[in-house]
Amino acid sequence: MRRAARLGSGAAAVVPRSRSWGLTSRPGFINNYKKAQSNNGQQTSFHSRPKLDSAAEATVIGGPSPLPEVELPDIPETPTKNKRVTIGEILERRRRAGRLVAPTAAGCDSGVFKGSSGKPMAKDMSHHLSYEASIREPCKLKQAARHLKTPGIISLGGGLPCPEYFPINSISLSVPDYLHNPTLSPPEVHPAFQDITIGKYDTHPSAPVQKEYDLSISLNYAQAHGSAQLIRFVTEHTELVSNPPYADWKTCLTVGSTGALEQTLRMLCDSSRNDSILTEEFSFATALETAHPLGIPTFGVPIDDQGLIPSELDHILSTWSPSERDNKRKPHVLYTVPSGQNPTGATQGPERRKQIYDICSKHDLVIIEDEPYYYLQLPPTITPTLTPAPSNTTDFLDSLLPTLLSMDTDGRVIRMDSFSKVLVPGSRLGWLTASDQLVERFLRHAEVANQGPSGFSQVILHKLLDETWGHEGYLKWLMVLQREYTERRNTLLKACEEYLPKEVVSWGVVRAGMFQWLHLDHTLHPDSRTKSILEIEEEIFKSCIDKGVLIARGSWFRAQQEVAPTGLFFRATFAAATPGNMTEAIRRLGGAVRESFRL
Amino acid sequence: MRRAARLGSGAAAVVPRSRSWGLTSRPGFINNYKKAQSNNGQQTSFHSRPKLDSAAEATVIGGPSPLPEVELPDIPETPTKNKRVTIGEILERRRRAGRLVAPTAAGCDSGVFKGSSGKPMAKDMSHHLSYEASIREPCKLKQAARHLKTPGIISLGGGLPCPEYFPINSISLSVPDYLHNPTLSPPEVHPAFQDITIGKYDTHPSAPVQKEYDLSISLNYAQAHGSAQLIRFVTEHTELVSNPPYADWKTCLTVGSTGALEQTLRMLCDSSRNDSILTEEFSFATALETAHPLGIPTFGVPIDDQGLIPSELDHILSTWSPSERDNKRKPHVLYTVPSGQNPTGATQGPERRKQIYDICSKHDLVIIEDEPYYYLQLPPTITPTLTPAPSNTTDFLDSLLPTLLSMDTDGRVIRMDSFSKVLVPGSRLGWLTASDQLVERFLRHAEVANQGPSGFSQVILHKLLDETWGHEGYLKWLMVLQREYTERRNTLLKACEEYLPKEVVSWGVVRAGMFQWLHLDHTLHPDSRTKSILEIEEEIFKSCIDKGVLIARGSWFRAQQEVAPTGLFFRATFAAATPGNMTEAIRRLGGAVRESFRL
Repeated sequence: MRRAARLGSGAAAVVPRSRSWGLTSRPGFINNYKKAQSNNGQQTSFHSRPKLDSAAEATVIGGPSPLPEVELPDIPETPTKNKRVTIGEILERRRRAGRLVAPTAAGCDSGVFKGSSGKPMAKDMSHHLSYEASIREPCKLKQAARHLKTPGIISLGGGLPCPEYFPINSISLSVPDYLHNPTLSPPEVHPAFQDITIGKYDTHPSAPVQKEYDLSISLNYAQAHGSAQLIRFVTEHTELVSNPPYADWKTCLTVGSTGALEQTLRMLCDSSRNDSILTEEFSFATALETAHPLGIPTFGVPIDDQGLIPSELDHILSTWSPSERDNKRKPHVLYTVPSGQNPTGATQGPERRKQIYDICSKHDLVIIEDEPYYYLQLPPTITPTLTPAPSNTTDFLDSLLPTLLSMDTDGRVIRMDSFSKVLVPGSRLGWLTASDQLVERFLRHAEVANQGPSGFSQVILHKLLDETWGHEGYLKWLMVLQREYTERRNTLLKACEEYLPKEVVSWGVVRAGMFQWLHLDHTLHPDSRTKSILEIEEEIFKSCIDKGVLIARGSWFRAQQEVAPTGLFFRATFAAATPGNMTEAIRRLGGAVRESFRL
Repeated sequence: MRRAARLGSGAAAVVPRSRSWGLTSRPGFINNYKKAQSNNGQQTSFHSRPKLDSAAEATVIGGPSPLPEVELPDIPETPTKNKRVTIGEILERRRRAGRLVAPTAAGCDSGVFKGSSGKPMAKDMSHHLSYEASIREPCKLKQAARHLKTPGIISLGGGLPCPEYFPINSISLSVPDYLHNPTLSPPEVHPAFQDITIGKYDTHPSAPVQKEYDLSISLNYAQAHGSAQLIRFVTEHTELVSNPPYADWKTCLTVGSTGALEQTLRMLCDSSRNDSILTEEFSFATALETAHPLGIPTFGVPIDDQGLIPSELDHILSTWSPSERDNKRKPHVLYTVPSGQNPTGATQGPERRKQIYDICSKHDLVIIEDEPYYYLQLPPTITPTLTPAPSNTTDFLDSLLPTLLSMDTDGRVIRMDSFSKVLVPGSRLGWLTASDQLVERFLRHAEVANQGPSGFSQVILHKLLDETWGHEGYLKWLMVLQREYTERRNTLLKACEEYLPKEVVSWGVVRAGMFQWLHLDHTLHPDSRTKSILEIEEEIFKSCIDKGVLIARGSWFRAQQEVAPTGLFFRATFAAATPGNMTEAIRRLGGAVRESFRL
């Protein structure tokens, strides 16, 4: 059922807590929680009327009043559904909007950075929320900050330190120029470097060049959703790549997808409701380790070389029987890594993605689309001449596989993006895209779980991505990475061809990511009748260590550890070692396999 | 009962999951989980034998092998119990240990950075753990990394990106020099600035000056406990300030105390066990908002001008009756802010702290000591000449109130420190000190909740605190802050003297922090018979907004919202506004109070 309208009260209300909740409730048990957002998904202008509703305890120190607002005409409504948004359109939109004004701890509705749409609204997903998620209330202190909009008000309200006590006057970065210099070479051999300096008061009217973000803002307390400055960039980027087909999608920053996944599982799953989640039958070990202590078991869906098999997914859901599934009710959440899946490297093709989405819609599942490797899409063969790399950023965008988010007409996809694999893992910063309703509930938790990502990370990524590279430069950088990872994969595959015994080891050409999955035919092992698969796996793993190569055991990634394994697998990464070391490592692995199989 | 010995197996084992757990268990239900640490609290040398047990997927890129180890004689055992550790001793210990070697994602036992002790071991606290905390296992992928210690091994194991793809070549900072320049003036008027540059490969043997930490390490994946480089600093600092009286205390970094509190509550509390926590009767609103969605109610302990009243705490615990307390069992956790408590500004004196600790020991409570304002200790009167500020860092350390951690003979204190109030809130970085057992369980959660703080934050704070200021410079900086906040408090108090109607408003002189608590005698309000306290509070709050001042309502901080309030309070901060604005704000507040009370 599509929500007819969003009648917001400005704050999430409380569902009365019931002691019997854990024992009696079923899907649909929470229906009456109100939305915190009154915006119905259409554009409002951040620039001409800064939204400081949740501008928790915002303040400007040292005398100067808040930065002047830029009054600009509204942008006419242009339906963008089913039409790719271009960088040119985004730049024009920005030009017309004027300088972004978002002071310390300013609240921000990411919707203001999207084009307007005329698209339908997302469906109501409140019945998927956990009890914990459903009763969360906004922080009282952050709510109070709405009064800071009152002209001339002085705040004795929030305990925000003065930036005059921040003992860092400026931060400078040296970065390669991917916007202006056409050389698509990696950072360390790039011919053009730029120095960027971030001052403490760069946004103040007295600054030599008045900027949109500075240390006085980024290093103070902020809203859990992250700074408006960086939210603008990721929202526009999401529009460029996915352009979700419903109106009220929103973004917010996260402390990386690891933390975002834990928050999402706590938001959607309840052990006392007998919840569980579906995943690929081999799945990211840390994701499984996140779910299990919460009392949430993971059930595996069979996969092939394109990952999740739609018919198997449908069959599992259609024939679900709690009595055969440890008393767990029919799953309402799918966790999937569609591109370069960890550990199998499998990548869902466009048609596969649509089928999976439709089945989840049919069975009313929320989809967690975890895509750290999405931009590391690689050509389907190891002969690069057959598929020329994209030559410009438009071709690059066109070459990318459709995201589940891009086909999400219902608003049931929670997409997690990460900068860990494409910039630096240490930023501990990513973002999440989902319906307004789900993002709002996620943020109520983020306010007490982490308060959003580091301000150092935010201001540095903003300066690099937005102010220096822009969308064009960032996409060029992603093209560089794609080339580099293609070479790395090809090196690994050539070594596999050369050194692995093909009579027992098989593999595919991975289409994305940083992992190669290797299948060993355990039935051909001379001890297959006396040793279990896990014993053979352990023997080869230990032999590898002895020979000087560390490789990941396939069994570490099994969604259902309690079920006996039926195949023997190893995972190898082509991300970390040098080409020479990678080749040598595969040679050693080949030796260990031959020895174990007595070839 | 004191644990006789720690027999570690190298990894936490699993307690079999029981379905009836939530319905039958009581204190002591989990007794048999093993410790992940085999170290029995004595010093081991990080330097001469880097501990890489959990050096998840550590790798060195681009050819060079791990940095050379520095072999040094062990430091002789010197009992340090009850003896202050000095900066000189720490510097000498470092000199003898040699250069710290901690490559990418290196595991780190903070114990190696402490002096050895001969102190007794912490008591076993496993019966306090939640079910979720008790069943957590270490990440499989991070465990596998112990094989990286094998000489000559090549890793195809973990998906760590190569630092050659980090598009930031260097980061520079401009900071005031508090180590060498004696001027104790705030950053912006400080006469001596230093430029610090952090390169990508500063730790490599080929670097012009070989450093201990660089961007290639800090911006890659890391262990959830944080980098050894920064852990060393906070461990030594904790020894300088608290020197806990048991052997096996440990530290780990956190993503700030907000996130650390949520993790700690999830580690200790279970709604299905009928857990609750005790707090000051007025407590930090966000802390209350963290506990409640977890189904953990907060019960308030009466306070006076020194905060928690020990006899009241003892009485509550001694006479606890579940039937009178919403069926909650006797609390096993106390959450307290001993210095400059938020919102009341109350500061526990030394004797008060000892009494509170002893009562918690008697009733077997875990104490969460949340101390963001600890270093903002202020003279007890507003006439600074009566109590001269400390003139050097030794006097400064001597002047600080004893921490609960410093009297923690049992290992029942979990102390949370934060850089938010003393450096920058945007670092989203703090640290936690507790027994090895509790820190280990906390970290198993951190691995999936956030993976530790931002690498940008870590490397920048390390460069500033450790490499540039050192302990001496950092303490001087804290002395600067103390002076600044004393002046701010005095400005606010003078304004209160001048503008508030003393016939209805009373206040004390806060001894720490950034908040002034104001008590209004509601019984003198002309409408006290017809209006509730909350109605009068709201009337004054709204009138304040109309007059142009935002102040926090006392009722926002009430631990038990369901109980009718008995007093009328407001909280004012002296952290944020300029002195002139602060005075004007108090004048406006005085006007609002007079109007409401018709004075």
